[in-house]
Amino acid sequence: MFHGVIPPLCTPLTEDGEVDTASLERLTGFLLDAGVHGLFVGGSTGEVAQLTDDDRDTALRTVVATAAGQVPVLAGAIDTGTRRVLRHARRAQALGADAVVVTAPFYVGVGEAEVRAHYETLHAALELPVVAYDIPANVGYKLPPALVGELAQAKVIAAVKDSSGDLEGFQKALDGAAGSGAACLTGSETLADLAMARGADGIVPGLGNVDPHGYVRLYDAARAGDFAAAREEQRRLAALFGIIAVADPGRVGRISAALGAFKAALAARGVIAHARTQDPLLPLTPDEARRVAALVESAGLTRVA
Amino acid sequence: MFHGVIPPLCTPLTEDGEVDTASLERLTGFLLDAGVHGLFVGGSTGEVAQLTDDDRDTALRTVVATAAGQVPVLAGAIDTGTRRVLRHARRAQALGADAVVVTAPFYVGVGEAEVRAHYETLHAALELPVVAYDIPANVGYKLPPALVGELAQAKVIAAVKDSSGDLEGFQKALDGAAGSGAACLTGSETLADLAMARGADGIVPGLGNVDPHGYVRLYDAARAGDFAAAREEQRRLAALFGIIAVADPGRVGRISAALGAFKAALAARGVIAHARTQDPLLPLTPDEARRVAALVESAGLTRVA
Amino acid sequence: MFHGVIPPLCTPLTEDGEVDTASLERLTGFLLDAGVHGLFVGGSTGEVAQLTDDDRDTALRTVVATAAGQVPVLAGAIDTGTRRVLRHARRAQALGADAVVVTAPFYVGVGEAEVRAHYETLHAALELPVVAYDIPANVGYKLPPALVGELAQAKVIAAVKDSSGDLEGFQKALDGAAGSGAACLTGSETLADLAMARGADGIVPGLGNVDPHGYVRLYDAARAGDFAAAREEQRRLAALFGIIAVADPGRVGRISAALGAFKAALAARGVIAHARTQDPLLPLTPDEARRVAALVESAGLTRVA
Amino acid sequence: MFHGVIPPLCTPLTEDGEVDTASLERLTGFLLDAGVHGLFVGGSTGEVAQLTDDDRDTALRTVVATAAGQVPVLAGAIDTGTRRVLRHARRAQALGADAVVVTAPFYVGVGEAEVRAHYETLHAALELPVVAYDIPANVGYKLPPALVGELAQAKVIAAVKDSSGDLEGFQKALDGAAGSGAACLTGSETLADLAMARGADGIVPGLGNVDPHGYVRLYDAARAGDFAAAREEQRRLAALFGIIAVADPGRVGRISAALGAFKAALAARGVIAHARTQDPLLPLTPDEARRVAALVESAGLTRVA
Repeated sequence: MFHGVIPPLCTPLTEDGEVDTASLERLTGFLLDAGVHGLFVGGSTGEVAQLTDDDRDTALRTVVATAAGQVPVLAGAIDTGTRRVLRHARRAQALGADAVVVTAPFYVGVGEAEVRAHYETLHAALELPVVAYDIPANVGYKLPPALVGELAQAKVIAAVKDSSGDLEGFQKALDGAAGSGAACLTGSETLADLAMARGADGIVPGLGNVDPHGYVRLYDAARAGDFAAAREEQRRLAALFGIIAVADPGRVGRISAALGAFKAALAARGVIAHARTQDPLLPLTPDEARRVAALVESAGLTRVA
Repeated sequence: MFHGVIPPLCTPLTEDGEVDTASLERLTGFLLDAGVHGLFVGGSTGEVAQLTDDDRDTALRTVVATAAGQVPVLAGAIDTGTRRVLRHARRAQALGADAVVVTAPFYVGVGEAEVRAHYETLHAALELPVVAYDIPANVGYKLPPALVGELAQAKVIAAVKDSSGDLEGFQKALDGAAGSGAACLTGSETLADLAMARGADGIVPGLGNVDPHGYVRLYDAARAGDFAAAREEQRRLAALFGIIAVADPGRVGRISAALGAFKAALAARGVIAHARTQDPLLPLTPDEARRVAALVESAGLTRVA
Repeated sequence: MFHGVIPPLCTPLTEDGEVDTASLERLTGFLLDAGVHGLFVGGSTGEVAQLTDDDRDTALRTVVATAAGQVPVLAGAIDTGTRRVLRHARRAQALGADAVVVTAPFYVGVGEAEVRAHYETLHAALELPVVAYDIPANVGYKLPPALVGELAQAKVIAAVKDSSGDLEGFQKALDGAAGSGAACLTGSETLADLAMARGADGIVPGLGNVDPHGYVRLYDAARAGDFAAAREEQRRLAALFGIIAVADPGRVGRISAALGAFKAALAARGVIAHARTQDPLLPLTPDEARRVAALVESAGLTRVA
Repeated sequence: MFHGVIPPLCTPLTEDGEVDTASLERLTGFLLDAGVHGLFVGGSTGEVAQLTDDDRDTALRTVVATAAGQVPVLAGAIDTGTRRVLRHARRAQALGADAVVVTAPFYVGVGEAEVRAHYETLHAALELPVVAYDIPANVGYKLPPALVGELAQAKVIAAVKDSSGDLEGFQKALDGAAGSGAACLTGSETLADLAMARGADGIVPGLGNVDPHGYVRLYDAARAGDFAAAREEQRRLAALFGIIAVADPGRVGRISAALGAFKAALAARGVIAHARTQDPLLPLTPDEARRVAALVESAGLTRVA
């Protein structure tokens, strides 16, 4: 179930900040048309931390309906403690998700024993497979590679999504999970070819919202053993990833800059109606949005609608 | 409204992990009898990060009913994004809270502009006063003292609770809030006398669950200008605070160690029925709980029931 | 030997970056006239990290000669490894220092066992008393309070200088060193009154270069038990400490800003001839230096020559 | 000058802690026989932070004499401030080094402007080329990729050695230095094949002391475009790198563990006489050293003498 390009979908919003289901349907169709292998709803890129529970449900319901079983739909169940995550996971299960994606507990200072208990409790209580989501920049905790390997071998987790940016740790997770059947997915936008060379099963790139065709080409090239072609595609995508550095870092934080750029690019390509992000994230300025659009165009990407 | 000793209440649980309302009523009565000046429900010490929304409501409803207007009840509205916090805050408002306590957004990498927008949006949307909660160890972000001062002067926040452990920052918050009417509360268990000497309006100590009488004596002494007496009380409380270091750090994380110790001490004093903490936090071992009980006794604290 | 106000002397430089011994003699005399209880040469404030070994020797020789035994002279022996520190310490011993001040090893990732070995080796090899210097912002390692207590009880260290800014840790060091005879000195410019209230033996404030009389008054008041007077003096000094925030943080790092401000203030008071700092530190701009001078004047400080 | 495998030499010591020049000559010959392309003396792996200036000189003199011009010799000039580094660099120049390797200033909190000034001052004062050494774990500061690119384009630095473990940053340095003629060297033991795939000019692996033949094979394969062979070699070397995790992390810090393991392995292979590390680093226990030797043997490495 867990392989290939699995973009973490942006959640398009109306000007009032409600989930823009029409735009989300278009985005889902755009990604499916590009040949992605799965869809991840309610991740960090999907502004899960900013969405209410109702908005999370609306987004998931929309994507599940649009995907209509063509590819698996993974749902983020992102919250601070086990019972809170369990509630989200059960809602996702009821709405038709094929798997849930779960970080270590956050806001509290946990140790390895609590993290292990967290995943074991969730695995025991859920019917859906659980994907461990390693994103230390957000969680303030790096999943120990040895623990990932242990949970994989015990079938507690069915996959790991590594957004740590640390290829050494990713290699250790690969080593630890070897033979377990658990998949190893990289969240890196810019080292995806290298992660594939090391044996990654798939890629979960936020930038895949903007250029899914590019990541599908990269994945296909790497799967075929043509790492030179994968690297060329990666080079082009890395340049495009420069859109996240357009916003003035003196004005907004790094997440506003990144998610604002993804949405500005999707609006420029005609996929979504508005580039609004959810409170308290701040949008790009009109001038910044124009610079993003210019980078999108110079990467050879056209309007799709 | 914001002065004196305002303990962040533990949330007692049954053996099954449900909110133990009978124990919570006893804890509330115990604190009121000790003369505390306010009650803070749904803070980090209250395991807000581990409680479901329903459990948060049950805890708040129980405390509001037991307090019956004798002292103000502050409710944590702790979540990752503005709209999520707003939902919690409105539920707290409906359940009778007198104020809401709100951290900076977390899980996402925000900058100062997003934090300012967060508090301004909440202030504009709510009728209750907003208390800014500075707890960088949990949030991964230190509220800039200058921003705290600015928000206080603009009446966006009515108080700040500083759990950063950084007295230099607390002093800057005091300076920034001077003349605004906003209260400055320290979350420190062990530097409370010094914070009072610098002009703190109140104390929000997790250890105040276990020994509320001690913190009330410390506060009264400091208010009366008797800092030598405040220091003596602080010295005794600092020794008692050693209970958070009883659990084996190789076995559990720091929050399990601290909250497990508070609950073990409350159980030893007969205030609550069980020392269970909420998933994924792990309880103390029976031996560790016995050592906590011994420290409680050697601090001169007796069973209350 | 280790009590009272012990300023960490700035190292005045000529326009060419050589040690300006005439200015250093004036600075030493200025501090002695103010009634300081010791002199600390070759600390972080003395730009030890930027000075060559010869320059360190020149500075120490100058201060020892000028002090002429009136007060103890402490010499920094600041370097990355044990044998390098030992060389510095022996030179300081030969030049007449009364004690050496030593951080944990840095540049390398050490653990507690290596830090213990470091101090034990130095103590065994030296005749001078060793002062442990806890400055985690520079060293990247916080001396564990329990280790400080252990080294104090074993007479391996004769004092600890705490520049961590963490009063909770300082309290633990005080507790650990109690009864050992080892002195506890705070390096805080702005919490000195509180550290004294907790039992500090002395103060090592960089700002004491600029206003030694103020810190002597603060110390005397605290020693006499008049903490209200100490706090008033501290309040004035904390305002003066604003000089370290004058330089544009977009232009220079925090150490250039702080040391540049101390030197600009000393030049404004007529104590030293030039405000130059050592490579690669960058000086304040003329406009910034004027603003420092204005703050110095508004703190009631006059030219001394 | 800067390409291929350039091991950062361990500094063998006698039982008394003096530089063991006979062992160092053997180590140098062993590396040259393996076909390395350069030698780096006085790096972190060479215990530069623990060696006195005289010991640094002895090590450099020994290697320069043994290499006898067969390959370039790079010398670390590692210290906290510009003038201190300049002294080391001039000594290295006098002793016959072909280049100096320099980190950002450390122990002090510098900003980008001070780092730029540091390298510019050194470049202007020296005849030898300067290699920028990016090792944030030791220095506490990550060289900004944009600054690396700028210094490369301005010919201020002739190469960069990246020991940050961050391949995204390495890619940015490659992009920034493109066309400047400056070389980009990776310090990674375990991602060397990937760094080569991205365009690295060379590898500076501490583990290259133990298995120089392996890294030369990896480099040759990558240069020939045979990344599958490079990856196989990397896989074997990564397993061998497990020797740095043999020492008990509860007993010693990470540098004692790593450097102790390198020396234990070199002793097991008969290259050096003693596995002693320099104060305050602590050696492996005899049992740990035996386990290192077993890993060395299982990696197919034999005794060379």
